[in-house]
Amino acid sequence: MDNNFDLVIFGGTGDLALRKLYPALFMADCDGRLHREGRIIAAARQTLDDSAFRTRVSEALSRFIPSMVTSAGEARVAAFLSRITYLALDATNVEQYRALKASLNERDSQTVFYLSVGPSLFPAIVGGLKAADLNTPDTRIVLEKPLGRDLVSSREINDLVLGAFAESQVYRIDHYLGKETVQNLLALRFGNTLLEPLWNRSWVRDVQITIAEAVGVETRGEFYDSTGAFRDMVQNHLLNLLCITAMEPPSSLDPDAVRDEKLQVLRSLKPWTRESLRENLVRGQYRAGLLRGEQVPAYTSEQGVAAGSATETYVALRTEVGNWRWAGVPFYLRTGKRMAERRAELVINFNPPPHSIFEGVLAPNRLVITLQPEESVRLYTMAKAPGDGMRLREVFLDLDFHEFFRERRQDAYERLLLDVLRGNATLFMRRDEADAAWRWCQPVLDFWAAEGGTPIGYAAGSWGPPASSRLTAVGGTAWHEELQL
Amino acid sequence: MDNNFDLVIFGGTGDLALRKLYPALFMADCDGRLHREGRIIAAARQTLDDSAFRTRVSEALSRFIPSMVTSAGEARVAAFLSRITYLALDATNVEQYRALKASLNERDSQTVFYLSVGPSLFPAIVGGLKAADLNTPDTRIVLEKPLGRDLVSSREINDLVLGAFAESQVYRIDHYLGKETVQNLLALRFGNTLLEPLWNRSWVRDVQITIAEAVGVETRGEFYDSTGAFRDMVQNHLLNLLCITAMEPPSSLDPDAVRDEKLQVLRSLKPWTRESLRENLVRGQYRAGLLRGEQVPAYTSEQGVAAGSATETYVALRTEVGNWRWAGVPFYLRTGKRMAERRAELVINFNPPPHSIFEGVLAPNRLVITLQPEESVRLYTMAKAPGDGMRLREVFLDLDFHEFFRERRQDAYERLLLDVLRGNATLFMRRDEADAAWRWCQPVLDFWAAEGGTPIGYAAGSWGPPASSRLTAVGGTAWHEELQL
Repeated sequence: MDNNFDLVIFGGTGDLALRKLYPALFMADCDGRLHREGRIIAAARQTLDDSAFRTRVSEALSRFIPSMVTSAGEARVAAFLSRITYLALDATNVEQYRALKASLNERDSQTVFYLSVGPSLFPAIVGGLKAADLNTPDTRIVLEKPLGRDLVSSREINDLVLGAFAESQVYRIDHYLGKETVQNLLALRFGNTLLEPLWNRSWVRDVQITIAEAVGVETRGEFYDSTGAFRDMVQNHLLNLLCITAMEPPSSLDPDAVRDEKLQVLRSLKPWTRESLRENLVRGQYRAGLLRGEQVPAYTSEQGVAAGSATETYVALRTEVGNWRWAGVPFYLRTGKRMAERRAELVINFNPPPHSIFEGVLAPNRLVITLQPEESVRLYTMAKAPGDGMRLREVFLDLDFHEFFRERRQDAYERLLLDVLRGNATLFMRRDEADAAWRWCQPVLDFWAAEGGTPIGYAAGSWGPPASSRLTAVGGTAWHEELQL
Repeated sequence: MDNNFDLVIFGGTGDLALRKLYPALFMADCDGRLHREGRIIAAARQTLDDSAFRTRVSEALSRFIPSMVTSAGEARVAAFLSRITYLALDATNVEQYRALKASLNERDSQTVFYLSVGPSLFPAIVGGLKAADLNTPDTRIVLEKPLGRDLVSSREINDLVLGAFAESQVYRIDHYLGKETVQNLLALRFGNTLLEPLWNRSWVRDVQITIAEAVGVETRGEFYDSTGAFRDMVQNHLLNLLCITAMEPPSSLDPDAVRDEKLQVLRSLKPWTRESLRENLVRGQYRAGLLRGEQVPAYTSEQGVAAGSATETYVALRTEVGNWRWAGVPFYLRTGKRMAERRAELVINFNPPPHSIFEGVLAPNRLVITLQPEESVRLYTMAKAPGDGMRLREVFLDLDFHEFFRERRQDAYERLLLDVLRGNATLFMRRDEADAAWRWCQPVLDFWAAEGGTPIGYAAGSWGPPASSRLTAVGGTAWHEELQL
């Protein structure tokens, strides 16, 4: 049975908490995966009583997971809400952490602090927890990105947190790693012999990782304008997906065994040079354009964005993993806002058969792992069409085996929250990983800062600037843009 | 458009013709794959007029492919029947081949002689065709098994046929090669890069090929008793399937390119030694038993079978393909009558992952190509069950892609007959292949003849004698007997 717990969510009235955390916890509760007496303490600045806050959570559940709420029924919702208490807390007021301490269980339960707040509040919260002696060795602390805006600030944050908690207590969350399909990739790679012989430079032509968003900066203009696509997406999500794809088989699923292998990948990433920064890096910024038939404004016309801003809303880059397995295989990463569609995917393009005995063109095999909008794992294959002759056609295999499983897929946050409650850190980033990722990223930030200039414009609703196609064209390939057969 | 043709079926009133050939031709006709003026001449000993014979064909169609007949409608059936003429012919009477000649088209059409008769009639028919100068270089001749009962008699038959026809005119049919799934294997292996890296001694633990029949000897007791399972199944069907599985990638789909590679496999089969004949060969004969709840008699009680017969109704053997790709990989072949169920399949068992990071046992991947009772190609794989943790479960991938194709699958005979009409000999055995197969088989026949003794009894309705399980157990494996998950 799972452990009893006190989960304290700082930023408990925030968008992430309402949209993701409470729904995830509710689903886990419905599945019987939360300890009967486990409690959720939402801490935020506003003055609210439990009842008013529970109503807010209830509304969020109905809004974001309506069908789950309907099928679960009112009693279940009420039972879940009864776990939640609200604590009005000024994070910068050390005194108030005493109240938090008083509200925590004295029972033998796991205390988790979830910092669902901007990093500017990290010092205050960590300081407050420390001042109130809440950072006992058996507690855990969950950190949401962004963990800094460059190598120096990320180190500051980590130093700060590690001044109060041991590394083993710290859970740096990246919800992309909580996706079923990402874990499916681990199962496919290491639970079978099918992929391993193909999973190297002899058979893989290139790897493409895309996180494309259709939305613009929404209400986050000010934050985004000081951040940009590279910091927002590349340093964390894209590199994490790259690590899971490229890593060597770990000796076990123990957190450190997996993270050691991921770290090796980060350390093997080809270091940037002046030349490669010029050749293998594209930054873009969206102009006005048509998205699904609707006219949308340019980035620089968005609210909160500085006039003439040079912040990138699109990044594409080519890199390599310098080791025996991957040497010479291009890894293409890209992310952008106001793209033609919302899609996050990981594509492994295999080499074409070296020689064809069939009429027509043989499409090279490719493995496409889609994380958004729907999760799927598909292996595109050439198959014989039934009937006369030997006509081959491209079809795909469903490698996440929808049809075999009746179980509901877990939401990424649900999965990761349960992992935190159980103390399984495998899917969370360790400090040395975060450091290595930033070390590789820093030259890009420095290059742009030194170079000045502005990103290349691209029309909202497109797939980014043409330069990003040149990036792949140099490697003799193209971005994977058509999923349908 | 396909060529005009005259297809002469010797043994035109026989079981094979009625059960397989006319239905296959009818289906091809319905698909518009037969030339408008193509004709079928059924030759047999009986005195019948066209009308009476057409009625017989019509009845056969309704019996063996009722749903095709229904959906095609009467007009189509009538149109098909109008292609057929009946020729009463005493195959041993040379004079009568003149009548055959007279009945053939003088148009520019392809003449095909299909010998759907026992090999004892081959000399008469080939002689008759020759005497009437019907063996012109543009004709083709199709030979059904058995082509001999040992190396010597097979050579005699081939010498006889090749005294009247060039090798390029001869089509030795093995309907197992006409199955969609067998051609799917070619498409999978050579139209993709997925399997090739796995397709060797590093990753394949063993290969198992099974042709199991639930029926006994039926009405063929006398024939079967002088033949046995080894001659009936191993020398042709099982070895052909082994060749398709083990062959190197051919440089093209040209008949000789493919058959050269198959021949290389036959020539690479580990030659028998006194020791390996004792260790790697099991012969069995069914005793009375229960088959699907019904009591069935022993082989020696079947009609036409000699009392105390030592003919084998079951063979299992282990061999190896002695080349760089396959050295050390056991190839297990087995066939039998009165087995627990009718099933023909080809199983490639891959090595298990060398190291597991998951809880529980990882079932090794395996590719299962089923030819009977239904055709399918399935790759058994470990996949992550959705939800918490990392529980893996065995599931399968459908590699013949049922769900993607609307086209009707072709029947094996339909495919092969069309190939003959078009002159595509890729799926037919060349003389040197037949020779090589017999050369490898002959020591087994000699061993049994020299050794005397009797086959091991096994209960009808079982999977053969226990000795066949010892055969695989020595190699650390077991026969693949459970298809279901």
